Amino acid sequence: MAPHLDPFFKQVDGLAESFIERLRKAVAIPSVSAQDENRQDVFRMAQFLASELEALGAEVHQRPLGKQPGKEHLDLPPVVIARYGNDKSKRTILVYGHYDVQPALKEDGWATEPFQLTVDNQGRMYGRGSTDDKGPVLGWLNVIEAHKKAGVELPVNLLCCFEGMEEYGSEGLEEFIQAESKGFFKDADAVCISDNYWLGTEKPCLTYGLRGCNYYSVSVAGPAQDLHSGVFGGSAHEPMTDLVHVMSKLVDTHGNILIPGIMDLVEPLSEEEKALYPNISYTMDDLHQSLGSKTSIHPTKERTLMARWRYPSLSLHGIEGAYSAPGAKTVIPAKVIGKFSIRTVPNMESKDVNKLVFDYIKAEFAKLNSKNTLDVWLQHDGKWWVASPKHWNFTAASKAVKQVFGVEPDMTREGGSIPVTLSFEQATGKNVLLLPMGSSTDAAHSINEKLDKRNYIEGVKLLGAYLHYVAEEPMVAA
Amino acid sequence: MAPHLDPFFKQVDGLAESFIERLRKAVAIPSVSAQDENRQDVFRMAQFLASELEALGAEVHQRPLGKQPGKEHLDLPPVVIARYGNDKSKRTILVYGHYDVQPALKEDGWATEPFQLTVDNQGRMYGRGSTDDKGPVLGWLNVIEAHKKAGVELPVNLLCCFEGMEEYGSEGLEEFIQAESKGFFKDADAVCISDNYWLGTEKPCLTYGLRGCNYYSVSVAGPAQDLHSGVFGGSAHEPMTDLVHVMSKLVDTHGNILIPGIMDLVEPLSEEEKALYPNISYTMDDLHQSLGSKTSIHPTKERTLMARWRYPSLSLHGIEGAYSAPGAKTVIPAKVIGKFSIRTVPNMESKDVNKLVFDYIKAEFAKLNSKNTLDVWLQHDGKWWVASPKHWNFTAASKAVKQVFGVEPDMTREGGSIPVTLSFEQATGKNVLLLPMGSSTDAAHSINEKLDKRNYIEGVKLLGAYLHYVAEEPMVAA
Repeated sequence: MAPHLDPFFKQVDGLAESFIERLRKAVAIPSVSAQDENRQDVFRMAQFLASELEALGAEVHQRPLGKQPGKEHLDLPPVVIARYGNDKSKRTILVYGHYDVQPALKEDGWATEPFQLTVDNQGRMYGRGSTDDKGPVLGWLNVIEAHKKAGVELPVNLLCCFEGMEEYGSEGLEEFIQAESKGFFKDADAVCISDNYWLGTEKPCLTYGLRGCNYYSVSVAGPAQDLHSGVFGGSAHEPMTDLVHVMSKLVDTHGNILIPGIMDLVEPLSEEEKALYPNISYTMDDLHQSLGSKTSIHPTKERTLMARWRYPSLSLHGIEGAYSAPGAKTVIPAKVIGKFSIRTVPNMESKDVNKLVFDYIKAEFAKLNSKNTLDVWLQHDGKWWVASPKHWNFTAASKAVKQVFGVEPDMTREGGSIPVTLSFEQATGKNVLLLPMGSSTDAAHSINEKLDKRNYIEGVKLLGAYLHYVAEEPMVAA
Repeated sequence: MAPHLDPFFKQVDGLAESFIERLRKAVAIPSVSAQDENRQDVFRMAQFLASELEALGAEVHQRPLGKQPGKEHLDLPPVVIARYGNDKSKRTILVYGHYDVQPALKEDGWATEPFQLTVDNQGRMYGRGSTDDKGPVLGWLNVIEAHKKAGVELPVNLLCCFEGMEEYGSEGLEEFIQAESKGFFKDADAVCISDNYWLGTEKPCLTYGLRGCNYYSVSVAGPAQDLHSGVFGGSAHEPMTDLVHVMSKLVDTHGNILIPGIMDLVEPLSEEEKALYPNISYTMDDLHQSLGSKTSIHPTKERTLMARWRYPSLSLHGIEGAYSAPGAKTVIPAKVIGKFSIRTVPNMESKDVNKLVFDYIKAEFAKLNSKNTLDVWLQHDGKWWVASPKHWNFTAASKAVKQVFGVEPDMTREGGSIPVTLSFEQATGKNVLLLPMGSSTDAAHSINEKLDKRNYIEGVKLLGAYLHYVAEEPMVAA
């Protein structure tokens, strides 16, 4: 045990109630970035963070990002950036989090007031933003405060990047990171993001990979306007019929992607990688619990986790332009647009995937021999990300987990994407670590979002311990 | 020529401007049955009709239908029923129409104010309800007025049934017709409905058949709530995938219904029936013009009209529960409900069709080997209707067309359904004739709905002449 951690840990325990109070104040500010009427609250939340950081002695700036594209009457919330410590002999760690939250209304089904932190007798702290992402953001502030009060010097320089538009597409952030990578962030030796979750509820994890996502639209059009199915049914090619046929050729019920060539792009599974899976703390019961059903495809946790993390998947999301309301309407839609996406993994390059998708869909449509017109295009793509889990950034975090929780962390990937991860990696050229604080049951984005007191308080210890191990790791990049 | 028609025709020509004025007053009342805020206008329109009929000397009643199911704060508009003439030696004709209209807003794209009748220099009279169905309803009133003013006795007893909820599902009407078939309507010898359209713009038609419609929902459900495709894509059976596969097995791009056994239920085409088609005034250009595209399935007008009128068709309308908005959302919908309908024809019995549909869909779903759950059910059905075009009711109408327009009418069927037709046939046991006034270009239900002056004024002559020929036809049922 690093000798200087004990006083820090004790201080964290002693400050636990005031850390919870800090979270209570933050949750009380409804910083919902998606709702115009809350924009001032998002600004208030930025000011709250900036004030707290200044009170702790950090150098703080609120950087404006201009007007919101498409909503020019609204200013984008600022990025709150801060520096704590400027000792050239120390490593510099850049941490990211976001201070905006998802919308929440009591009448959506919350058991408590969503913007009023409510702690139950099992230590579950309910409130919008508690786990996503105000708890982790305040975690870094708590680390500084506990060090100061314990009289322990922070072993690294800390750079903070807290944004206020994460839940609404991180408008303007990528350009900001790109620019500041040569500016305010130029000293960063590594990046740490705390904005995801443990795989389960007991064991912490470090996350070293994310899938990418290529999102497609495929449209079929025929008549000039919607038609009445009584009048035209049987005499005209129906776009919906063609689209459903094409969409049925993309993926089968067992999740196999039917587009030839896609699986050839996937990095083969090595024995070394395969060996990582059996030890991961996860069960089929965990999956069934999160699904709320037993409709899993694979029989084992290993195949399930591989399907989620290291193999691509294709999901059909819906159809625009068709009849989607309850009830009955006898319409032949004139133009329908199917939406589907492919989760991508190493070594799938977006342009290769696009070519396979476009060629195949056009070929399948041609087979139908329809007079309708098909078009298919990429709506957006985001690349997959895989970091080296042997980098000192990960080794330090792993030791910190062992120190605080007494277990080796699971080394995980995630099936979804966190675009900012790749932005930081590409802009800074440094290793990025995802170090989650919350657990799998925290219900981010849902009703009754919560953060467990244990995850919050031990999480503060974890973030602090991580910085100490970071300071000690030898300078060998993996 | 029946000697008593000339003075009637002359009177109609003389009254043309006042007939248009009557239509102007009716169009000015926005009797939109689907919009709560217009309910009082629907009542006003009923009162307008009742007053006009009373002024002409008819016995009139406004029959209440009670509260609107599901909207108990609203009274259903009354059925306006009327009797003109009560001479036991005359035939009695029951006519139906509706005085409510579709919604319309100038900003939907109307070139003129929708509730202000606007006549252009080609005699096109634009206004909501002009052709559907205020023009035809007033047509009967105009017939009475022209007879009175010409001093010509109406050769039949006329019973009117004008409803105010046709555009919103004809709430309560079927029970009303059923009850009154033994009451106010008990003397009816035949029924005439003017609420459809010519096949083209030049030649009138008589309509003797309608397709029925069986509307189905097929649901696939799996997880307890919507899932994130990043997190769960590849590890869970996706309801949308299964539904799209099942829906793709129902119909092909050329309109062929793929459900085995359906086509075996269809009455074979006789040589006699086949011979009716070549003479019908319709071209592939007409079809392409109404489609606004050349995406027709069949190469000839004969096969096109048969596909529309005398063969079943299956249309996929849409999917409820999937992502249907513009843009991109990476959701795996937890439960999706596909909507499709089959247009039915003789001799398809609803229960036989249902059994074939249900069995086939369940069998196709079973082949997928999915852990999701499928359900399929009938949302509603309406039976097809085919009358004998050799009945005196049709013969009379045919002679009237020849008299007024100088041509033999096309004998047509329609691909859609007009449920009230079957209600009248079943309740009264009498022959029902569909005798349209408007033309194929009238744009009922669309923006810029219109009725041509020629169709309106010559249409009044047609309705009157029809009553005269009805009175002369020998009493031989076909």
